[in-house]
Amino acid sequence: MNAFTDIVVPELLGTMILILGGAGVVANAILPRTKGFNGGWLMINFGWGLAVFAGVFVSMRSGGHINPAVTLGILSSGAEEFAEGVPATFGNLLIYWVAQLVGAFVGAVLAYLAYKQHFDQDADPAVKLGVFSTGPEIRSYGWNVVTEVLGTFMLVFIVLSFANWPGDLGPLAAALLVVGIGASLGGPTGYAINPARDFGPRIAHAVLPIPGKGSSDWGYSWVPVVGPLIGGALGGLLSAAIS
Amino acid sequence: MNAFTDIVVPELLGTMILILGGAGVVANAILPRTKGFNGGWLMINFGWGLAVFAGVFVSMRSGGHINPAVTLGILSSGAEEFAEGVPATFGNLLIYWVAQLVGAFVGAVLAYLAYKQHFDQDADPAVKLGVFSTGPEIRSYGWNVVTEVLGTFMLVFIVLSFANWPGDLGPLAAALLVVGIGASLGGPTGYAINPARDFGPRIAHAVLPIPGKGSSDWGYSWVPVVGPLIGGALGGLLSAAIS
Amino acid sequence: MNAFTDIVVPELLGTMILILGGAGVVANAILPRTKGFNGGWLMINFGWGLAVFAGVFVSMRSGGHINPAVTLGILSSGAEEFAEGVPATFGNLLIYWVAQLVGAFVGAVLAYLAYKQHFDQDADPAVKLGVFSTGPEIRSYGWNVVTEVLGTFMLVFIVLSFANWPGDLGPLAAALLVVGIGASLGGPTGYAINPARDFGPRIAHAVLPIPGKGSSDWGYSWVPVVGPLIGGALGGLLSAAIS
Amino acid sequence: MNAFTDIVVPELLGTMILILGGAGVVANAILPRTKGFNGGWLMINFGWGLAVFAGVFVSMRSGGHINPAVTLGILSSGAEEFAEGVPATFGNLLIYWVAQLVGAFVGAVLAYLAYKQHFDQDADPAVKLGVFSTGPEIRSYGWNVVTEVLGTFMLVFIVLSFANWPGDLGPLAAALLVVGIGASLGGPTGYAINPARDFGPRIAHAVLPIPGKGSSDWGYSWVPVVGPLIGGALGGLLSAAIS
Repeated sequence: MNAFTDIVVPELLGTMILILGGAGVVANAILPRTKGFNGGWLMINFGWGLAVFAGVFVSMRSGGHINPAVTLGILSSGAEEFAEGVPATFGNLLIYWVAQLVGAFVGAVLAYLAYKQHFDQDADPAVKLGVFSTGPEIRSYGWNVVTEVLGTFMLVFIVLSFANWPGDLGPLAAALLVVGIGASLGGPTGYAINPARDFGPRIAHAVLPIPGKGSSDWGYSWVPVVGPLIGGALGGLLSAAIS
Repeated sequence: MNAFTDIVVPELLGTMILILGGAGVVANAILPRTKGFNGGWLMINFGWGLAVFAGVFVSMRSGGHINPAVTLGILSSGAEEFAEGVPATFGNLLIYWVAQLVGAFVGAVLAYLAYKQHFDQDADPAVKLGVFSTGPEIRSYGWNVVTEVLGTFMLVFIVLSFANWPGDLGPLAAALLVVGIGASLGGPTGYAINPARDFGPRIAHAVLPIPGKGSSDWGYSWVPVVGPLIGGALGGLLSAAIS
Repeated sequence: MNAFTDIVVPELLGTMILILGGAGVVANAILPRTKGFNGGWLMINFGWGLAVFAGVFVSMRSGGHINPAVTLGILSSGAEEFAEGVPATFGNLLIYWVAQLVGAFVGAVLAYLAYKQHFDQDADPAVKLGVFSTGPEIRSYGWNVVTEVLGTFMLVFIVLSFANWPGDLGPLAAALLVVGIGASLGGPTGYAINPARDFGPRIAHAVLPIPGKGSSDWGYSWVPVVGPLIGGALGGLLSAAIS
Repeated sequence: MNAFTDIVVPELLGTMILILGGAGVVANAILPRTKGFNGGWLMINFGWGLAVFAGVFVSMRSGGHINPAVTLGILSSGAEEFAEGVPATFGNLLIYWVAQLVGAFVGAVLAYLAYKQHFDQDADPAVKLGVFSTGPEIRSYGWNVVTEVLGTFMLVFIVLSFANWPGDLGPLAAALLVVGIGASLGGPTGYAINPARDFGPRIAHAVLPIPGKGSSDWGYSWVPVVGPLIGGALGGLLSAAIS
């Protein structure tokens, strides 16, 4: 195993593509003067789901995780490998996590560039942050964590059952699953269900020179990290318990 | 055959996932202050269809029924097995039914937890019930039964024709079929087309401490049980007649 | 070959399911007091597309035509068989056409029963007819024919190229194709692109005791028959020319 | 290799179908008095994506490019063949490009005929041009190029990773990818991501006798040509770098 070519490159590029597409569809739906303005929740669900589709293709070599909660779930399920030839060790877990976080940051920067002129328009600072990171409709850290735990549990538990599916169709299955989870469980918190997806772009929001941007809401930032990690671990444990 | 591992566990978990996703998307579409509020009927159709997708994956070992009407339809079609190694007997039918009902109840409780804060908002009691169970737009028990019979007949008759499809693509086929039936035949009654999907969550509604909840509408509760069972049996009989 | 079991039964049932789903989604979108009222054009596109998905499964034995224009297109392409073991002769073409027409009629009656109470509500007679049959937004028989020719040409030309695809995925390919054609070319005339789909339900509209129904618009009824037949023949001829 | 049957015919017909469907869905969404009027951005995304689905089927023999940026990306990736038996040479690239451009022109003419009566209605000249070619919401040639580069980079980079997928599912993968890119990155410029898709229909707009048409906006026309070519080349180069 070569950590750079077998983990870092595919996970970084896959997560980059995930966020380019995912932050992109939110920008299209909520930033001023876009063609998809007010395009609706289902458009956002398809945008994120198909960003997963694309991102998983790019990261097939590393198992297509592009999500620290998935990597953790595989580890907690007791699997021996993260991907073919990549041992499921704690050390490799950390390499996955770093690559995913960096990829998510880069993807957010690219999405910012794609929508640069729309970020330059006047808009509520919360809207501009909303392109990068999730936030709850009703703030309550405890219940927000519960929602993120349940969404990520569903994601990881089902993804781990895909082993029965033809591997080549995995990107499609993951995409459809994420469309469904977004439609079903995204209502309260905006379904981070992926710590890198939320934390990497939040750093980008803090760093980028966005006109009229407000707080990066660091007070909430641990929720979409902790909730998904708990949910992913639970999904892995249940998967192991029934197999 | 081991009834616990071959029927109870997969059917219970599969139906739990089905209702977590299905009740979730309705909550997202109709409860106050969600991100998907007023997301539209097609969003609900995709949410339910992709909940079927996820639920069938979880229950592949038991044949992916997650619906008493499907189990009954397989029995009425004269098939010898409910799943590989699981004889299609009346006794096993009852085990499927109980597991499906319990799974649906648990899934509804999980969906309630995911949307806990939104249930705490003021809303019409009928809206809160609508997250759990179906209700007709124009109440007429006879015609409501007809609609449920037709929807479930279509579901079971087509599912039984999937035998010609690669088994691994079954979850996708079932998902798309349910998206279509919801869009097409869900208009009058909200397409229970699954007794467990309606009855299990209705019990959850009656039991859970939901603020401002109203009646669980037990007067209607037999319609989405009897209609789907008739439709499923008819689908199985027709499938047998033409094969 | 047995014409009854190899053609009549599968084509009749397949077209019945097609119209149950297709007329159903239009009823859901436009009849009063449905849950999917005003659900939008994309919902209608998915409803019809997934009705094709279901209908093709039911009619795999006869080749999954469920559309006289497809049967004609196969004949005009010079293929030797309509389905495995079913010679592509003019006599068999007529058997397909009759089965498709009868199936479409029966499917329309079933859709009427599913939405019986909503047909009993007050509504513009044109709305009630719209559940059964297509009508143009801007009436001009010549240009309406052109639109139907182009839509059906696209359908049949692409379907005939599916021979390169795995046969088992055919229902999915046909479904997606019809979703796309509806979104793209359905705007002017409502995309009959299938003579049976339009003519069978129009007879049902004329015969059924629908309260407040108006004319069945027989003056237009030849357009969605002639246009699709021309388009299907052209699709078959082009397919033959390039293969 | 026979350039006519192996490149020209499939690419011309495939791109023709692409634009018939793609221009069609925009016509349906924005021209007056269509059934899909104001159908929303997601409907446009599905219409274009499924037009790709259909167009790729038609052009399987030539590799299903139907996009000069894809052909350039394959060349820049260092691949030896554009399709089975078709060497990836600069000469062949030019043949692809001409066939794609002619096909896009013909497809636009067909879409015009399908919507002839709706083009005859009064409408903003920009709306009529919008059926044929893309235009930015906020005009800034530099940033508009950036957006087109990013969208096409994502398209070509992912398409080149499809080599790992079963070839027969390629049309579906390409379709879903384009649905996703449209939802995610189409907001600022309308996602040409294909020089032929924009330039061919722009010529058709200039040539066709459309009542009340305005400028063909030639000042912008180089953006959706240059941006996608840069993006496609980058996608090919990155694909080569990591493989």
